Amino acid sequence: MAKQHLDPAAGPVAGDTLEAYLQTQATEFLRALRQHRETGGSTASSGNGTEETVDAARALRRSARRISGTLHTFRPLLDTDWSEGIRPELAWLSGTLAREHAYAARLERLLGALNRLSGCSPIPAQTASEPRQEKSTLTVGAAKAGALLERQLTLARTRAHSAALQALGSSRFHAVADSVAVLASEVPLSPAATSAGLKPLAAAAEDRLTDAITALPLVSAGHPYNAEALVHGLSADPAPQPQDAPWHQVRLLLRLHRYALEVLYGTESPVDVRVLNAGQALDRHRDAAEAATAAASAARTPRIAPATAYALGVLHADQRHEVEAARFAFRQAWLRETVSTS
Amino acid sequence: MAKQHLDPAAGPVAGDTLEAYLQTQATEFLRALRQHRETGGSTASSGNGTEETVDAARALRRSARRISGTLHTFRPLLDTDWSEGIRPELAWLSGTLAREHAYAARLERLLGALNRLSGCSPIPAQTASEPRQEKSTLTVGAAKAGALLERQLTLARTRAHSAALQALGSSRFHAVADSVAVLASEVPLSPAATSAGLKPLAAAAEDRLTDAITALPLVSAGHPYNAEALVHGLSADPAPQPQDAPWHQVRLLLRLHRYALEVLYGTESPVDVRVLNAGQALDRHRDAAEAATAAASAARTPRIAPATAYALGVLHADQRHEVEAARFAFRQAWLRETVSTS
Repeated sequence: MAKQHLDPAAGPVAGDTLEAYLQTQATEFLRALRQHRETGGSTASSGNGTEETVDAARALRRSARRISGTLHTFRPLLDTDWSEGIRPELAWLSGTLAREHAYAARLERLLGALNRLSGCSPIPAQTASEPRQEKSTLTVGAAKAGALLERQLTLARTRAHSAALQALGSSRFHAVADSVAVLASEVPLSPAATSAGLKPLAAAAEDRLTDAITALPLVSAGHPYNAEALVHGLSADPAPQPQDAPWHQVRLLLRLHRYALEVLYGTESPVDVRVLNAGQALDRHRDAAEAATAAASAARTPRIAPATAYALGVLHADQRHEVEAARFAFRQAWLRETVSTS
Repeated sequence: MAKQHLDPAAGPVAGDTLEAYLQTQATEFLRALRQHRETGGSTASSGNGTEETVDAARALRRSARRISGTLHTFRPLLDTDWSEGIRPELAWLSGTLAREHAYAARLERLLGALNRLSGCSPIPAQTASEPRQEKSTLTVGAAKAGALLERQLTLARTRAHSAALQALGSSRFHAVADSVAVLASEVPLSPAATSAGLKPLAAAAEDRLTDAITALPLVSAGHPYNAEALVHGLSADPAPQPQDAPWHQVRLLLRLHRYALEVLYGTESPVDVRVLNAGQALDRHRDAAEAATAAASAARTPRIAPATAYALGVLHADQRHEVEAARFAFRQAWLRETVSTS
């Protein structure tokens, strides 16, 4: 097992390193929050925020995830009551803020796929919100499927936007922001932080990751075109595919591992390419799986035309195919580096 | 370029070898025809023939294809008028006989895929004609899609069966059978057959094959999950995909190459594994492409339910995915052997 990441030469004591990392993230959180407020993120407009607001929301999620993940991995070094209290609140916040972006990205992915499947050139990201200009080259079914998805996902995005605004104005959010503000000036370390090291805890996080990866069906994922991701493509169960869950879990554990590396080596150190590529493959896995579910769910809309339903069926299968491709890419990324470095 | 197949130590002169091969195939044709008549192939029943009749029809097609292919590859060694006259007739015959089997196989492939996509165990071949017992585990859409495909492809198969019976009773067929009977006793060689060799003509057939393979998009086919086969999955053009044509052409040229090897080395010599695997991949490519077209075509049936259309869309994409997988498999089969033998 490659543990080379967890052997820094000699560093400051655990408490100092952890404190510095959490303070950096807390400061970043407060900076992003200020930027979000200044760029109009708190106005009640239901449309897209400006580019700056979107960036600020992303930065807010980014630091919330890092604080939450770090509190989890290095739990024994921190004041238990305090960290157990704030973690679910940070998860609630980043989940709430992520939803609007996720719906927008899902719509863009699905409209892009519809264009690709119609033999049209892929739509560039900046025109993703104006798909109508492309529709002349789509079949009736593809155009109607696109319009249906646009309607459903735009509505979902608008609701998520309102929910995020409501969350940011809530007393629950203000309590989170206050806790983070405290964190920026003083990290509540446990007495253990002065004697125990960071490395065993980071190593334990890596072990949880490698154990979860070992349990993945990597052999079949390594056979291209194994047709596994579409095995329940027409099953009666409308719930998200249970076969995806272990991959989603590895995605979360990989993220915790990445944050633990940041704590040990600093946020400025270059990101491990293997971790980066593997993480991107798992992000694509998650995005494609959710897009496939959205297509299947749109197909259950009452009174749609058969041509619309057909296009949604093709789209669903295409995205499940992407799920399978992402698993293949994850395996390539993960095993290639293991082979070349061990 | 590997020409190792085309270097037999020393054989009989071209005319003798070619004559022996064509006579063997002609004899086989006549034997299969007799068997087909004896096992009830000429009765006007519209259902399946018996297993023997099916075997006899397959043997008839098999020898008709070999005679036709050999006449093509070794054209300069044969009486031109005679071979130009009989080739289109043999092609008509094998095409007519192949259709019934093709519809049956297509239905079996599509029902198998519907079961797989519903998370059911694959149906064994012998129960393919009784899919109803499986339907309880299918969604309504998958079950209806299966029933629709069964209706359409069974009707097509029944028509193909009648057309084949009609063909076998026609004076056109009797003229073909008479020509083949002549071939069994005397092959009309050209004067060139005594001096020219078989090898240059077989080599020319192999060159046509390798040229056609060189023109294939093998680089993209070598990237798993290149998503190329589904690029026109929703295009407005209902015609079979033009991107498939060069692959179908290679399939035919590979078959001509295989028959030329049989002429040179005899039908008893072991088949080149590379040629065999590559040919099987291209058969799968053709079958999946035609199944995808059948699913798309069924989805254009008026007044079907959206759930049926959705299932047919998933099925279409699944089969186009199979097309892509078959291209990948062809490339693996073809390049692997080139690398290991050259």
